[in-house]
Amino acid sequence: MKSQRRFINQFMPGETLDQVFLVRDKDLRTTTSGSLYLSCTLCDKTGNIPARMWQVSEGIYNSVPVAGFLQVKGRTEQYRGTLQLIMDACRPYAAEKVTMADFLPATEYDVEEMWAELLEILRAVKDKHIRLLIKKLAEDRELVAKFKRAPAAMQMHHPFLGGLLEHTLNVARAARALLPLYPKINADLVLPGVFLHDIGKTDELAYDVSLGYTDRGQLVGHVTMGAVMVEKKIEQIEEETSEQFPPALRDLLQHIILSHHGVHEYGAPKLPSIPEAFFIHYLDNLDAKMYMTISAIENDPDPDAAFTSYNRDLQTRFYKHSGQL
Amino acid sequence: MKSQRRFINQFMPGETLDQVFLVRDKDLRTTTSGSLYLSCTLCDKTGNIPARMWQVSEGIYNSVPVAGFLQVKGRTEQYRGTLQLIMDACRPYAAEKVTMADFLPATEYDVEEMWAELLEILRAVKDKHIRLLIKKLAEDRELVAKFKRAPAAMQMHHPFLGGLLEHTLNVARAARALLPLYPKINADLVLPGVFLHDIGKTDELAYDVSLGYTDRGQLVGHVTMGAVMVEKKIEQIEEETSEQFPPALRDLLQHIILSHHGVHEYGAPKLPSIPEAFFIHYLDNLDAKMYMTISAIENDPDPDAAFTSYNRDLQTRFYKHSGQL
Amino acid sequence: MKSQRRFINQFMPGETLDQVFLVRDKDLRTTTSGSLYLSCTLCDKTGNIPARMWQVSEGIYNSVPVAGFLQVKGRTEQYRGTLQLIMDACRPYAAEKVTMADFLPATEYDVEEMWAELLEILRAVKDKHIRLLIKKLAEDRELVAKFKRAPAAMQMHHPFLGGLLEHTLNVARAARALLPLYPKINADLVLPGVFLHDIGKTDELAYDVSLGYTDRGQLVGHVTMGAVMVEKKIEQIEEETSEQFPPALRDLLQHIILSHHGVHEYGAPKLPSIPEAFFIHYLDNLDAKMYMTISAIENDPDPDAAFTSYNRDLQTRFYKHSGQL
Amino acid sequence: MKSQRRFINQFMPGETLDQVFLVRDKDLRTTTSGSLYLSCTLCDKTGNIPARMWQVSEGIYNSVPVAGFLQVKGRTEQYRGTLQLIMDACRPYAAEKVTMADFLPATEYDVEEMWAELLEILRAVKDKHIRLLIKKLAEDRELVAKFKRAPAAMQMHHPFLGGLLEHTLNVARAARALLPLYPKINADLVLPGVFLHDIGKTDELAYDVSLGYTDRGQLVGHVTMGAVMVEKKIEQIEEETSEQFPPALRDLLQHIILSHHGVHEYGAPKLPSIPEAFFIHYLDNLDAKMYMTISAIENDPDPDAAFTSYNRDLQTRFYKHSGQL
Amino acid sequence: MKSQRRFINQFMPGETLDQVFLVRDKDLRTTTSGSLYLSCTLCDKTGNIPARMWQVSEGIYNSVPVAGFLQVKGRTEQYRGTLQLIMDACRPYAAEKVTMADFLPATEYDVEEMWAELLEILRAVKDKHIRLLIKKLAEDRELVAKFKRAPAAMQMHHPFLGGLLEHTLNVARAARALLPLYPKINADLVLPGVFLHDIGKTDELAYDVSLGYTDRGQLVGHVTMGAVMVEKKIEQIEEETSEQFPPALRDLLQHIILSHHGVHEYGAPKLPSIPEAFFIHYLDNLDAKMYMTISAIENDPDPDAAFTSYNRDLQTRFYKHSGQL
Amino acid sequence: MKSQRRFINQFMPGETLDQVFLVRDKDLRTTTSGSLYLSCTLCDKTGNIPARMWQVSEGIYNSVPVAGFLQVKGRTEQYRGTLQLIMDACRPYAAEKVTMADFLPATEYDVEEMWAELLEILRAVKDKHIRLLIKKLAEDRELVAKFKRAPAAMQMHHPFLGGLLEHTLNVARAARALLPLYPKINADLVLPGVFLHDIGKTDELAYDVSLGYTDRGQLVGHVTMGAVMVEKKIEQIEEETSEQFPPALRDLLQHIILSHHGVHEYGAPKLPSIPEAFFIHYLDNLDAKMYMTISAIENDPDPDAAFTSYNRDLQTRFYKHSGQL
Repeated sequence: MKSQRRFINQFMPGETLDQVFLVRDKDLRTTTSGSLYLSCTLCDKTGNIPARMWQVSEGIYNSVPVAGFLQVKGRTEQYRGTLQLIMDACRPYAAEKVTMADFLPATEYDVEEMWAELLEILRAVKDKHIRLLIKKLAEDRELVAKFKRAPAAMQMHHPFLGGLLEHTLNVARAARALLPLYPKINADLVLPGVFLHDIGKTDELAYDVSLGYTDRGQLVGHVTMGAVMVEKKIEQIEEETSEQFPPALRDLLQHIILSHHGVHEYGAPKLPSIPEAFFIHYLDNLDAKMYMTISAIENDPDPDAAFTSYNRDLQTRFYKHSGQL
Repeated sequence: MKSQRRFINQFMPGETLDQVFLVRDKDLRTTTSGSLYLSCTLCDKTGNIPARMWQVSEGIYNSVPVAGFLQVKGRTEQYRGTLQLIMDACRPYAAEKVTMADFLPATEYDVEEMWAELLEILRAVKDKHIRLLIKKLAEDRELVAKFKRAPAAMQMHHPFLGGLLEHTLNVARAARALLPLYPKINADLVLPGVFLHDIGKTDELAYDVSLGYTDRGQLVGHVTMGAVMVEKKIEQIEEETSEQFPPALRDLLQHIILSHHGVHEYGAPKLPSIPEAFFIHYLDNLDAKMYMTISAIENDPDPDAAFTSYNRDLQTRFYKHSGQL
Repeated sequence: MKSQRRFINQFMPGETLDQVFLVRDKDLRTTTSGSLYLSCTLCDKTGNIPARMWQVSEGIYNSVPVAGFLQVKGRTEQYRGTLQLIMDACRPYAAEKVTMADFLPATEYDVEEMWAELLEILRAVKDKHIRLLIKKLAEDRELVAKFKRAPAAMQMHHPFLGGLLEHTLNVARAARALLPLYPKINADLVLPGVFLHDIGKTDELAYDVSLGYTDRGQLVGHVTMGAVMVEKKIEQIEEETSEQFPPALRDLLQHIILSHHGVHEYGAPKLPSIPEAFFIHYLDNLDAKMYMTISAIENDPDPDAAFTSYNRDLQTRFYKHSGQL
Repeated sequence: MKSQRRFINQFMPGETLDQVFLVRDKDLRTTTSGSLYLSCTLCDKTGNIPARMWQVSEGIYNSVPVAGFLQVKGRTEQYRGTLQLIMDACRPYAAEKVTMADFLPATEYDVEEMWAELLEILRAVKDKHIRLLIKKLAEDRELVAKFKRAPAAMQMHHPFLGGLLEHTLNVARAARALLPLYPKINADLVLPGVFLHDIGKTDELAYDVSLGYTDRGQLVGHVTMGAVMVEKKIEQIEEETSEQFPPALRDLLQHIILSHHGVHEYGAPKLPSIPEAFFIHYLDNLDAKMYMTISAIENDPDPDAAFTSYNRDLQTRFYKHSGQL
Repeated sequence: MKSQRRFINQFMPGETLDQVFLVRDKDLRTTTSGSLYLSCTLCDKTGNIPARMWQVSEGIYNSVPVAGFLQVKGRTEQYRGTLQLIMDACRPYAAEKVTMADFLPATEYDVEEMWAELLEILRAVKDKHIRLLIKKLAEDRELVAKFKRAPAAMQMHHPFLGGLLEHTLNVARAARALLPLYPKINADLVLPGVFLHDIGKTDELAYDVSLGYTDRGQLVGHVTMGAVMVEKKIEQIEEETSEQFPPALRDLLQHIILSHHGVHEYGAPKLPSIPEAFFIHYLDNLDAKMYMTISAIENDPDPDAAFTSYNRDLQTRFYKHSGQL
Repeated sequence: MKSQRRFINQFMPGETLDQVFLVRDKDLRTTTSGSLYLSCTLCDKTGNIPARMWQVSEGIYNSVPVAGFLQVKGRTEQYRGTLQLIMDACRPYAAEKVTMADFLPATEYDVEEMWAELLEILRAVKDKHIRLLIKKLAEDRELVAKFKRAPAAMQMHHPFLGGLLEHTLNVARAARALLPLYPKINADLVLPGVFLHDIGKTDELAYDVSLGYTDRGQLVGHVTMGAVMVEKKIEQIEEETSEQFPPALRDLLQHIILSHHGVHEYGAPKLPSIPEAFFIHYLDNLDAKMYMTISAIENDPDPDAAFTSYNRDLQTRFYKHSGQL
């Protein structure tokens, strides 16, 4: 049963454990007195912990599967200010028997509900071409499956399964809330633009057993990949309907994708050139920064400090008590 | 009567006029045949137009008041691609008799209604210290009078009377709309932060007869001036209540003002270090960019071009038809 | 007959002319003595010249076609340091009767020969998939027609009809010359990469009657457009051959297109990540800079100066005599 | 007695010690053979040293006060190229009995003499308003006490008790020496400007038991805090004298504080806009760089190297022998 | 007689003149009524003025010597807000008869006195090699003649004859005043470093009849040229003395020259790596900025404005009254 | 015999060794049980390896020569993921008996053949002055000896003995290959420019027993040093021939050296201002990047990864299989 697992971020010194971990790496080492010991890193979705097993044989060492699962008996202890796990026994564990959700971090929201809400928001689109485009995308099962599972990023924000959908929905909600305030902004561009702005991440990132980049993701990137996906889906629509999709609509949707990073330095090949592109750029950024600041504050390891440790991306320390004055 | 005026941005070639203008500058010149003519620039709130009066005397030239008002008879004509005004007669006009609103651009919304709505939004604040601070600010008649009249900027966005209030209200509405989506964000910081973020502009800018900077505005700037205003108002509250205003509240409100430009390059002495500061930074930016892009599109002089002329601040041309696809 | 035309860049003061020009703009103005005159700008492929016609009627003014052709009789004269053309008579001229090449600047090389040589160089490719891709591109008549006619840029380098082909051929020749020196570099990526690096310019730019950007060009840009073109052509190949085109090949060709500007600041969404991408980036840049420096030197208006005027793009003045020491 | 202490930067391998240290951190660890040992970092004003105590109980571990003082018996030894301290015994030590100056680095100059000299230099001011402002500041006992004790920075330059005064005095001496060379520069702005440029550091930094930032320091920063302090002190003067302090004087002093970092990138909300602001900016920078380079050279650990290790702030290595050629 | 000349910057509208000017450029133009007129720009050391002569022949036009001198009779008048000169008669004037100092701006100080004071300051150097180097430089008549005549820059600061010496002396005085405050700084490097830091300008700039760059100045630049000059002078000393000049001294002097611009962006091939290089960098910058700000304030054309016009180099407007509060 | 050595980059766990190493550093440490052990780093030209010798005396420790050679008996083992060497015995080894080439990395090409080929390429120069300059440089035995031995850089590219020659030859070959494509480019400047562009590295770098910078290299840098070397060699030629070397030739060669880094940020005091300087800049960069990318790919430690680890200089990971598709 999933919920009986004790997660790594809950470990205290002196616990006794008997459960399965994902193995990140392993090493066979010699103590100064000459005996062999196993050193490895064990993971679950909440983090990782260094582990050691004293006086092992090469056979035991060989049986430990890197990027595979390991049943471990042992106890935690404090070593040089961090916890480590001393293993008494271990044996490989079949991936099929594992609750994968324990090992890859995932959104805490219901994926199907989020997807339904996103489609509901998109229903406000009036333009028939855009509606058809959304329909075709929503009917593409493989794409939708990826869209529901992909993280929004490797590290920066929403770096967990379902993160792309969660982030996209957040931006869509924000757009829905703000569009009434800016009546000259074209909702028929903003709403699909929000849906599509990061859609290339479904193929830029790999998120099967762990998070990473695909080769195509590294070489081409989600910005261009998103523009290509729009192009191909529209081409498919044109073939099916024998009717031209309005070129300006296609160009503007692609423009929104290409410009949503806002500045060239962050990999945008085009700068925002319509109000709708700025609109999405700022709401996208806002949601990302809310995630980054709040999670930095909530995960700061030092409970006594008023400020988090230095955040290299945002070049500052965050004050941790602005939320509860 | 105000509404009978024909405004400069409506002029067509060949119109005959008899009305009052604000004089920006004047010059006495000689034609190649040796006769004197008057060259000057005439303004109203919608723009300005070059004007000439042939064969004038020095007396007439001297009677024209720079930064004053002039009753003008004449006709418009096209010259080198722009309109100019050929004056047949002119005489100075008393400033007291003028409808000032015709000469300084102003918000098209009702200032009192906007102010009331802003106060209404601020009523959502629960913290008693912040409520008291808002109350004291709203009771400061001189400050409120300036806040209702000040522009939001010289050129970039909302550069007209009432622009500061209009922009602040826009950001407050956006904040009210988005706060429910981010429940961990402290509304008691965001709402006063929005109110105060540009409040230093009430004294940074001069907006009596025309828009400009005050000396203090140029030397000190609205970012610091806003932080100083908060400091002084809180000091006054402390004196009146004989109670300390919570230092953290004061520091965080000042931090929001100091960091709302987001990056050092735009004159922010501090980078955003609480989620609320990022929140305001993005909504402020969003409202400014909506104004800048939409007004660039609406005021683009060439009706045939699909793109506006190049915008140096945003480093692009804007596509003009994204709103009506 | 084309060659009997006297081109604008050859005009001397005091010439008498009777020939056709392209009209860029026109204006009806009044002299200080009150009479009307026509002021306009006339162009051919070598430049443009301001022109005036004294004492015109509105009828004559209306008959002058902006962006159309005008038969002009008149004479040149020096005015404020530049030449102008005083028109004695003019009448509209049918576009069909015009030698278009006189009005749009074009490569001085034979387009068909250049195209043949480019194909010849591409014949060195050994990979069968790439060969097929090149074949399909070369058989796309519409694309090839555009590729032969498009300029390489609006202003920076090779800004004339055929400039894209001329530049691409130059880079291809350079690649062919250098590849033997770098045997570890994959010629099967470099050669198609050179061919494709700017291919998006065929649709980014407009070059019918004058040079400009298409709407899609401004919104999407040639970098992304080139990547999309490769995607679609490969998709078409896959449909025709019922065989998958190797994904890595596709990704690497797109990567070369996406990274050929070298740095994000110049609109590259990806930085070069294979030796072949750097290889193309430098040879592309080299050819562009050779054009820019040599044409700046050859076209510098002041024969006495040892240095050209300041070049804003390259932030320097060029010494004009390095070629003939 | 203070001077009998042996300071950490004088330790040699093999010394036997019995004295008090400040404890920075502590850890309870297990050796590979399973026994417990204490690992901690001990400090005094000259640096810190890692220390270990073998075979300790949890009781001993718990008795060690982090950020408190510890009486230690033990000996030094070389371990992996750095010294460490092997403790034989230890017990907590009361903070009241400690000579605090042994544990926080401090200026080597006499604070009272420096303060007197600074006031002496400021006596050259002629303007009566400025003189009154200086008088009021110098009579503010709490402020002066902080001003004499504060460091000038956490790390960059003069990072020790009294460093702010030492640095301010250095800049004041330099100003006094250079003012005669620039007679058009207003000494009545320069001298108080020097005094005030870093005065916000008295509250930006915390310097009781160790050096750090205050919360307000991190959120608001010394640049704005200095401007606010000037505002409040002037307000107080106006109340006491019932006379307006000249606004231009106030604005210019605040401008000097706001612009003394010289460029936006270093947190200056305003760029220098009067000669006096540039004057102070350069002399401030000069004194800081003299400290940084000379202390880098004097503290470089490798006596054989002609250059120091790489300095990240100044992006170079310093040549160490320029002073004694 | 020099002092009887009326200088261009003193001209008022309506003056009658009969004196010599330097001709910068000339043009033969036609009025709208068809008659020819001469348009040219006349200069002296204080500025330039546009001039016109109505109804001229080609003969008169041809007789006007560009970059030569012209005796002019005429009167000044206001045209479009600036003064112009209407010439009634003119004839070429021999350069030999001209007081050149009237036409090239020059230092207001006595060049010989400045040179003597600089040598006096340099006399504080104790190192015998440096003393010999200074002696050799001071005995190089051609070099000294150039050093006394060269400007310090084309535009930025001290852009007039004798400006290099005036600026160098200012920096030397500042160094002399500050060296006692920094006893660890090596005066034997600072003083010759100040003397040499801009010495390459003697050959980088041309300053015979007007200010400009030499070809070598544009291609190589004064930074490198200064380092080369030091190298050659030392080589010459070594030949004469048959003794090696200490290499470290040579390298450090060259380092000071190479790094005195402080950052790569301003053309410094090396960043300051000794305290003495920073010392010179800041004093050099200080003197340049004092010149730039004070001359911008003193030459601002609008007497009513509290701020100068925008200064592109320093990115601000200067407040004009900080000197006389 | 050289080839019998087993090089560090070939070591596998569990090897038994008896051979000579270069000692980089050493340390005497205590185990937790109190016994002494020797820890040191051993090198050869292919890399370095940490080594330990258990239970040593201080005598043994003292006998190990840092920066000297050591005969070592021992065996390799895996420890914490990297190899280390456990020494059983060691003794100092005389530097004279060592094959130095085993310890400093060197070009794999024949230095004399490369030099001959470079001279052959330079033979294409036609200008007699340049030919004489090349001749004089090639006859300078000391210079040529350094030129054949110097590396091209410390780390970035060709960081091994002979690297400067190898890199220079590569660029020369590329120039020879591309010059026919750009007939307006002056080969008589390009070829010597290539030869000279990095010639200052012969004295900027130290490469006797290990690679490093000379003092002059750090203070002055190869860019300026190259320009100075050209100046001095030309001066020598002028003395010998009693004829002036054409100043423009000298200036242009120095300009090529000074501008070959392309932008100020990389230490170029001048930006390229002739086509030939751009030509060399790009070919130089191309050769460096080919080295950097290919060696990063070939030396990437992880055989399973499709991308190399992150390259800080080029800000990307390299795809490792573009060469063998």
